[in-house]
Amino acid sequence: MKLSEIAKVVGAEFNGDDCEIVSMNTLKDATSNELSFVANPKYVKDIPNSKAGAILVTEATKEYVPKDSIALVVEDTYWQMATLSKYFAPPLEDKDAPLPIIGKGSEISPKAEIANGAVIGKNTTIMAGAYVGSGCVIGDNTILYPNVVVYRDCIVGNESIIHAGTVIGSDGFGFASNRVGEHKKIYHIGNVVIEDDVEIGSNTSIDRAVFGTTLIAKGARLDNLIQVAHNCVFGKGSVAAAQSGFAGSTIIGQNNVFGAQSGAAGHLEIAPFNTFAARTGITKSVKESGKTFAGFPFMDHKTWLKIQGKLARLIK
Amino acid sequence: MKLSEIAKVVGAEFNGDDCEIVSMNTLKDATSNELSFVANPKYVKDIPNSKAGAILVTEATKEYVPKDSIALVVEDTYWQMATLSKYFAPPLEDKDAPLPIIGKGSEISPKAEIANGAVIGKNTTIMAGAYVGSGCVIGDNTILYPNVVVYRDCIVGNESIIHAGTVIGSDGFGFASNRVGEHKKIYHIGNVVIEDDVEIGSNTSIDRAVFGTTLIAKGARLDNLIQVAHNCVFGKGSVAAAQSGFAGSTIIGQNNVFGAQSGAAGHLEIAPFNTFAARTGITKSVKESGKTFAGFPFMDHKTWLKIQGKLARLIK
Amino acid sequence: MKLSEIAKVVGAEFNGDDCEIVSMNTLKDATSNELSFVANPKYVKDIPNSKAGAILVTEATKEYVPKDSIALVVEDTYWQMATLSKYFAPPLEDKDAPLPIIGKGSEISPKAEIANGAVIGKNTTIMAGAYVGSGCVIGDNTILYPNVVVYRDCIVGNESIIHAGTVIGSDGFGFASNRVGEHKKIYHIGNVVIEDDVEIGSNTSIDRAVFGTTLIAKGARLDNLIQVAHNCVFGKGSVAAAQSGFAGSTIIGQNNVFGAQSGAAGHLEIAPFNTFAARTGITKSVKESGKTFAGFPFMDHKTWLKIQGKLARLIK
Repeated sequence: MKLSEIAKVVGAEFNGDDCEIVSMNTLKDATSNELSFVANPKYVKDIPNSKAGAILVTEATKEYVPKDSIALVVEDTYWQMATLSKYFAPPLEDKDAPLPIIGKGSEISPKAEIANGAVIGKNTTIMAGAYVGSGCVIGDNTILYPNVVVYRDCIVGNESIIHAGTVIGSDGFGFASNRVGEHKKIYHIGNVVIEDDVEIGSNTSIDRAVFGTTLIAKGARLDNLIQVAHNCVFGKGSVAAAQSGFAGSTIIGQNNVFGAQSGAAGHLEIAPFNTFAARTGITKSVKESGKTFAGFPFMDHKTWLKIQGKLARLIK
Repeated sequence: MKLSEIAKVVGAEFNGDDCEIVSMNTLKDATSNELSFVANPKYVKDIPNSKAGAILVTEATKEYVPKDSIALVVEDTYWQMATLSKYFAPPLEDKDAPLPIIGKGSEISPKAEIANGAVIGKNTTIMAGAYVGSGCVIGDNTILYPNVVVYRDCIVGNESIIHAGTVIGSDGFGFASNRVGEHKKIYHIGNVVIEDDVEIGSNTSIDRAVFGTTLIAKGARLDNLIQVAHNCVFGKGSVAAAQSGFAGSTIIGQNNVFGAQSGAAGHLEIAPFNTFAARTGITKSVKESGKTFAGFPFMDHKTWLKIQGKLARLIK
Repeated sequence: MKLSEIAKVVGAEFNGDDCEIVSMNTLKDATSNELSFVANPKYVKDIPNSKAGAILVTEATKEYVPKDSIALVVEDTYWQMATLSKYFAPPLEDKDAPLPIIGKGSEISPKAEIANGAVIGKNTTIMAGAYVGSGCVIGDNTILYPNVVVYRDCIVGNESIIHAGTVIGSDGFGFASNRVGEHKKIYHIGNVVIEDDVEIGSNTSIDRAVFGTTLIAKGARLDNLIQVAHNCVFGKGSVAAAQSGFAGSTIIGQNNVFGAQSGAAGHLEIAPFNTFAARTGITKSVKESGKTFAGFPFMDHKTWLKIQGKLARLIK
């Protein structure tokens, strides 16, 4: 999309040299042919170092845009980012992509749907009703049980098992809202990567990243009915029991254990090797390792047990 | 169904003029060719004003039945209502209905199933494994991702997006129970209406109404793995994060925001423009607007923070 | 599988008479042509009475193995049990089994998949996108709504209704872990049995047993988005509202009622005829009947109400 067209869509002034913008990205990751934006004041500091070809800014933040980047000044940068995201979202399927490539020894049910442009590895089984989108790569010796859905451009590694009804790569829960309470969808341009030796239970939902990747790292184990929101990283060998949920952009280190119905807020970092009891509600980043937590808001497990004891005595 | 047959099925005495009863409905909404019932003492006051052609009542409540309506006296009105609901439930599919109508520009996967009697709008995409039942109407420019299920007679508006694995219109969780602990299913005769510009995440469940409609109003946003029970109204522009749940008949005003893993009890009314933190358990109706709540049972968010502080100090 | 091969796989010494081992099972249920194991010290007492043909034990526990059974001594019995489980798991489908048998009056959507070796009863409806695996038996007058998945060897009774997107028989969440945080899958050899007159909502997950059966007893009612883990027994006429969850091996007596978003820990026994309010977190077995519980950790409902009152006063 021409930068001049982008400027027109968002109603920004633009009279520099026109150029082709191929995608959108974060200030940190955008390259010279990508558009970025700054919506949260905490990221204003990242503007001067951005390599983005153009940046959506406000009157107040335009001064930080570096000289190799073009400032597009708008009133509501987040709303306009949402507006533009639609233009950079790929079609639901690449009808014109080559027929899917199926590796030797793989069995694909005639009732599964493998979209054009997908690549399936060797000795992999894709059962009835499963869907694999365009641009997906599914590894070797992997099983997709019936009615698993993998949205386009997502990757599933080798020796992995995805149980029935699980959805990988649906758009994250992101939208811009205006003052009259309308919401504008943010099309999610990123993907989901599931590494090797991962097992995911049934009816679990793993959303694709806005930009970049939602990652389920090697050896992870996810149970049934779990929510993994956009841009999470679920660390190597980490384990989550049924009905737990992880809000957007939370980064989970290796070999954490999450009990059933536990949950983590968004934008947290959780150090490796901790255990969270069932129903724990993780409200802050965890910097220590080797600890056990419980409660909501969460606390050391022993402290939680003490509080329960106190409460029990309270009523006597 | 003839009223005389209905009387026979439920074991009620009947020797008036026979008539055709075409459906069942609430006391308030029933018309002269519909049957109603009163099971909850709090609705006895609605009997005298009901326009229902016939009403299932007990010996104790029969005196309130207005003269234009016929009283069918039974011992357990709720149980008999459940018994009769089966007779008024339509078949799973209308095999004899006309072939589905597909609007111009719409793409229906050959692996999707569109039942006879369904109508699909223009430029709508229905992906592999999706199911649209008889009598459904799906609007224009709408997307049903793979394996979405829309049960018969439900409506989805224009410009809406339903992500993979979501189920719209399954029967609500309703049954009558007797003294030996058996349960009799209440067939749900109502539907679900999803208005325009709604986005619903993956693996979410929205149940159809017993009678009438479960409504997801214009501009609403629902995340993944959410439960919306029968007869709820989810207000215009309201937003619910993953794994939240709304029990039966709760009416949610516009532009409420529900955090992840929050929940609301049944039969509540929630005024517009409130925010409920993650894990909030809403146990009563909310009459104010512009407030933020947290906790279970829920309370003002600031009060909840204070209690957490007190508890933390308790154990020192 | 020959016992000598098994010994080789797990690196155990073996020089007795070779024999054929046909499956794995618990110490209590294993027969003379089955292999068992002991991983939890609390089951060491069951070794001497086991009828298993062979038992995986450690140096420390080998002395308890009865003389009719063969001890296979390994370092990590649980890890080796997981290793062997793969060998005893049946293939995903029995391609060579006879074509499915469909009872008189049943309607199977051409878009449903019924694997070879499945048996469907009379007047049963299996809608588009549903999957019924090899060895499954589905009863009479039963409905599987679109996209229901029943994994191989599971049983669904008569007059039962399974709503869309529900998954029955996925592998339970079980694996052995080693000291460097790797997990080895335990293939689940058991099944799920759903008795007669059961209704299960949409997008619910019921895992198959490791060995034996996960049971949903006659007349039970399960709502949407519920987790039932491996080896649970959900008692006759018991009822669970949406988003509740039951951890592994918990045995629930008849006519219990579980509110929405409630949960039970694993390996509990819950006596019949109790009620658990919404969000109750059941942490211990319940021996009484006729009671109402609430809270997490759970307690008598009245006590919970009192504590909430005290907390409310605390902050004044």
